[in-house]
This record gives sequence, C-alpha cells and structure tokens, in this order.
Amino acid sequence: MKDFIFHVPTKIVFGKGVCKSAGKYAKELGKKILVVIGSGSVKRTGTLELVMSSLKDASLEIELLEGVVSNPLLSKVREGISLAKQFKADAVLALGGGSVMDTSKAICAGVMLQNDIWDVFTRKVTIKYALPLITIPTIAASGSEMNGYMVITNDESKHKLAAASELVKPRVSLLDPTLTFSVPKDYTAYGAVDAVCHLLEPFFNGPEPDPVLQDRIATAIIKTIMEAAKKAIEQPNDYKARAQLMWSASLALCGLTKAGVGDHFFPMHLIEHSISALFNVAHGAGLAAIIPGWMKWRSQSDPSRILRLGELLWNITDQNGVNQTISNMAAWIKDIGCPTNLSELGIKEETFDDIAQNAMTQTSIWGKSDIITKEIIKEILIYCK
Amino acid sequence: MKDFIFHVPTKIVFGKGVCKSAGKYAKELGKKILVVIGSGSVKRTGTLELVMSSLKDASLEIELLEGVVSNPLLSKVREGISLAKQFKADAVLALGGGSVMDTSKAICAGVMLQNDIWDVFTRKVTIKYALPLITIPTIAASGSEMNGYMVITNDESKHKLAAASELVKPRVSLLDPTLTFSVPKDYTAYGAVDAVCHLLEPFFNGPEPDPVLQDRIATAIIKTIMEAAKKAIEQPNDYKARAQLMWSASLALCGLTKAGVGDHFFPMHLIEHSISALFNVAHGAGLAAIIPGWMKWRSQSDPSRILRLGELLWNITDQNGVNQTISNMAAWIKDIGCPTNLSELGIKEETFDDIAQNAMTQTSIWGKSDIITKEIIKEILIYCK
Repeated sequence: MKDFIFHVPTKIVFGKGVCKSAGKYAKELGKKILVVIGSGSVKRTGTLELVMSSLKDASLEIELLEGVVSNPLLSKVREGISLAKQFKADAVLALGGGSVMDTSKAICAGVMLQNDIWDVFTRKVTIKYALPLITIPTIAASGSEMNGYMVITNDESKHKLAAASELVKPRVSLLDPTLTFSVPKDYTAYGAVDAVCHLLEPFFNGPEPDPVLQDRIATAIIKTIMEAAKKAIEQPNDYKARAQLMWSASLALCGLTKAGVGDHFFPMHLIEHSISALFNVAHGAGLAAIIPGWMKWRSQSDPSRILRLGELLWNITDQNGVNQTISNMAAWIKDIGCPTNLSELGIKEETFDDIAQNAMTQTSIWGKSDIITKEIIKEILIYCK
Repeated sequence: MKDFIFHVPTKIVFGKGVCKSAGKYAKELGKKILVVIGSGSVKRTGTLELVMSSLKDASLEIELLEGVVSNPLLSKVREGISLAKQFKADAVLALGGGSVMDTSKAICAGVMLQNDIWDVFTRKVTIKYALPLITIPTIAASGSEMNGYMVITNDESKHKLAAASELVKPRVSLLDPTLTFSVPKDYTAYGAVDAVCHLLEPFFNGPEPDPVLQDRIATAIIKTIMEAAKKAIEQPNDYKARAQLMWSASLALCGLTKAGVGDHFFPMHLIEHSISALFNVAHGAGLAAIIPGWMKWRSQSDPSRILRLGELLWNITDQNGVNQTISNMAAWIKDIGCPTNLSELGIKEETFDDIAQNAMTQTSIWGKSDIITKEIIKEILIYCK
C-alpha cells in the first residue's frame, strides 16, 4: 500500500426527498445563498421550486445564477464570481449535474481570489480560501458532490482543464435519488460510464502493482454501477437502481479506491477532455468511446491489470482472458446505448492530431509530458477509432 | 437503499513513519496536548518517544495519562478528565489501541460536561462539546480512529456500555502500519476478528433485505482482512499485510458499509460486551467465540443472509450452503488461533443467565429490549457454548 491522505469532510444526506432539507443545511453556512443551476430542467421538474421554498422557509436571501451548460464554461464561472461578489454571497448551493457543481466550486474559489480563476486551472495560483458549498446533484455521474475536483472549459482557448482543492469540497451534499428519475436514458448511461471510468483510472494507472483491497472495493462499485445502470435505463423510476447508481457514483471519486494506490493520473479523462473541448460531446459519451480502445492499448504493454479486472468482475481466470475482459466491458457500454469507439461519435482519424495537440496543454500542466507524449496519445486514439 | 447520513470528517494520514507528524497536526488544534497511552508497550517499542519528540519539536506543552487497560475503565476516564481540566488541555492525543482511543474520546467529551461522563453512556445526557482529538492507533482492530463510537466499562457496576457522538470523531488519525509490527499474534488475530465482526453486524442485522453495494464492499473488506490477518500472524513485519489490515479495520466501522443498510444494532457486540465486562476476556476473543454460534442461531430464522455471505466470500451457491458458510468462518477463526466457542474461553453454561442479565442493561439503554430479550440471548449463548 502506498502512503496516502484520505479526507472526505462532506456530510452526505441521502434519501427520498432530502432536497427539501436545503434550507436547514444552508442556514448553517450563512444568510445569503447563491443558487447555481443549469439550463432549466430543474425548473421543469419542479425541483428548483422545492429547493427555493426550503431556502425561503429558512429565511435565507437567495440569488440565482442560471444557464450552466455541459462542459461548463469559464465565462459562466466569471459571471458567477461577479454575481456572488455583488450579492455578497455567504455560500453557494449547486443544484444540478457535474457541470453545475464544478461551476459552483470555481465560483466559491474565485470570489476571494486576487487572480483570475483560470490561473487556478493553469496552476499559476493555488486556492487559499473558498466560500462554503452545498450540492444537490440531479444526476449520478461526476461524483463532484463528494470531492474537491472541478473541470472547466475555457471558451476562448478551447482547453478543458481540471483543478482540485480541499477547500472546494462540499460541506454538505443532499443526495436524493428521486431527482434522477427524470434523467434521460442516454445521460443515465453517460453518467454510469463516467463513474465507472473514475474507478478504472486508479485501477489501471496506479503504481501499486497489486492493491488488493482497493481492487476489490473498486470492482464492487463497478459491478453495482453496471447492473444498476441497466435497470435504471429500463425502468427510470426504479428507486433502488437509482439509489445504487447515485451512491456508487459518489463513492467512485471520493478518494476511497484511490487511497493507497499511489500517485497516478487520469489518461482516459485527459484524452476525453480534449475531445469534448473540441467537439462538445457529452463527457460520458466521449469516455465510452475511449475505454475499450484504451484498454486494448494498455494490454499491449501490461495485460496483468486487465486480467485482474476480468477476474474480479467476471471471474475470468484464463491467462489469455484479456480480449474477453475488454469485450465484456465494450458489451456493457454498448448495451446501455453508448458509443464504443470514436467513429460512432463522428470523430474521424484526421482530427487525432488536433486532439493530441490539445491534450498536450493538460499533460504539461499536470507535469506528465514525459509519461504521455503526443505520439502516445495518437497511438491510443488509433486503438479507439 | 435506506436513507442515511454519512459523515467521516477525520483526516486520515496513512503510511510508514507518519506518527512522526504528530506535532504538525497537533499544533493545528492547540498548544497544550494531553497524551493518553496504555500500560507501557508504546514506551518499550520507542513509539512514545518518537511522538513526544515530534510534539516537543512543535513547541507544544504535554501532559501524559498512562495506564489505560483493555476493556477500558470509567475510573481511568474520570482520572483523565480531572487531569485534562487541571492541565487546561486544548486537545487530546490517543496513542494506543481501541481502549486508549475510546478513553480519550470520553475524556474529550467529559471535560466540558456538567454531568458525570457515565451519564453519556446511560443516555441521560448528550454531548454538546468535546475537545479535539488526534489518534495514533497501534493495532488494527476497533476502527475507533475513524468513527464516533466509544465503549467504556463501569468498574463499579460491571457494565460495559457504548456511546456515540459526531463530536468525538477524531480530527486527524495518523495510521502507521509499522507501529503494528510488534502486536503479538493473538492480539493481531483478535483485532482482525473485531474488524470482521464490525462488518458482519450491519451485513446480518440491517432491515434492507438486499443491500447490493454494501454487501459487496463489506465482503471485499472481510476477504482482505481474512487474508491479511493470516499473513501478518505468520510474518509480523509484512508491511503490506499490516497495511491492508490497518486500513481495512478503519474502513470497517467508519459507516461506509452501514450507510444505506438501515438502522440496526450490534447483537454480537452486545453479548460480547457483557462477557468481557464479567470475565475480562479480550474483546476480539469474545467475539470469535460468539460469531459461529450466533450465525447458526441466525440461520434458523433466516438463512438468506448467511447464504449471501457464503456466496460473496467463497462462491458458495448451493442453497444448502449455510453449514458450509458457517464452518468456513469458524475455520478461519480457528486458523488464526482464536476460540470458536465459549467453552474454549472457559465460560460455562451456568454463567449464561448472568451474561444475559448483564446484557439487558445494554438492550434497555439501546431501546431494543423488545427485539432481543433475555431469553433470546440465552438461546444464542447455547449455540455458542
């Protein structure tokens, strides 16, 4: 086991209707709450009204920031920072998916920052202070409700970069699986793929050769997501499936399966961030198209981790089980209606150079340019085509 | 999935030699640190010196409370509270096993309490304030380093009672597996059994009939403990085994596998607390002697959960696999050198009435007298004899 720090200060309140406790928890953080939402689905479903009522019942002052899009934009973050300053927000409440939560985190961090918030993403400055955050996720996907990561796309430079800080970890996250009943089939599937990929990255890319406990916990969660996603897609109001999916997605990126695995990075996410920055595809769809190809590429240099995954997920004990493991993974991705390669997303080989070039900005910021070169990324993309 | 709140604010710092960071983390909590230890093994191993040096290097004032015994006593807690008040401690540092950590928690809570601390255990008062706590566990067992539970024995009334509070959850726990190299074989085994039992209690006793994710995570951890305990007993300095054991034991009772399972209680622990209160056996040894018999008793009314355990741990898919599952569990307990029934502990049938009578104090405090009567406890004890 490698040395690690594990810290999840977020209080998780999980259950049917917990979004109606928003006021109770927000009140503990201040009087003026900036509520951040996406493009309006929370209005149509009535969730925004429920949350707003709860905040009003707790006598809180509210300001609303609307219009966060998927692959959330730096321009919207800057708008939110201005609004939060003007309103003198005490805290931020994110009501939405990963994009809304990540935008909210960047707002929380940006309000007290001397620099522009993008400097945090390019690692020019670190966050020293952030407003407290409550999240109410409306989709099981990013796990942002239980970690300190945020991913923002710079609409000018077309770079999608990730940043992390202890200070933007939500104080409280209200996880209400009934809010995800209305998530369409495709986005339910994308969310499931995203969560699975969060578990696969440390599984495949940590330096610990055989992280026994972490492997077992990671595959316990992956298996559950695989089953629950299928059920939730077939039967959107299946509470049990939605609940399993929601809690699994939160646990997937809270640091639990990463703790002890060693310092690693997220190559599949890195490549996908460039794809969605350039082609604006849904993050989970982009990951779905990369995972099987990436696994094939990975198995060339080291099949052992692919075999371990196959063993734990599907009892594949055959030493030649690499192909079976990869095809099982691809079959699940396909089964839930996601693309399994880049051509299904309409992304052609002639763009691979652009994607790889875009990705280099991330690798240099992450200090990984020596490990994952432009040539390696192009090689991986060929496996994913 | 049942509704739940999950909250683990403790920062876990895990790795070789992290005990030497005691000063760094203690300094964040105040200037005057009360260090609590057991009967001196941390002196013999040199660990106390390391920790003390680290505290002194951080210019902290230190007071030492020595002599906490296993099945820790209320009288020692009271002594610690007096000492902490007199010293005007800002924080407490627990260096030891579950007994030292639980004693420290009770001291943290007792310092600012108007009532006597025992009133917390008998549920007469709740904790409103507690000093901050750092723990440095020296054995993988109780999980006290990552939760809000504490168990104390009243040396006058011979009752061993548990209490819980958010406020006594450690702020920081420094988990250094090398500190456990010197734990003798028997106590390594007792610790492993305790941790396994922390996972079995919610597995068997939650109201959720089929908690898919929690079952899988719980058995992932149980399997790891079973393997790692054997290795650590064979080879006490096997860092990997000690690390797996240590992190597994912490995760076992941090709320992770309990979250979503529903409100349940700890019948095996309840019975064992009475046994160790009356006969002063090691907690893990008492649990080891109870687990197989309790499983037999449990399978009479509902074999499904026993079968589920067998399926997940040993791929037992036979519908008649109850006996196989129980005998596999007993075989592991025996294999690591623990008793598998009460007679091996020298506890005779004629004492069962006393044990059951003693346990009734706990059931009434827990409000479970209707579920687990004296007669039921005696019935279970017969299976364990």
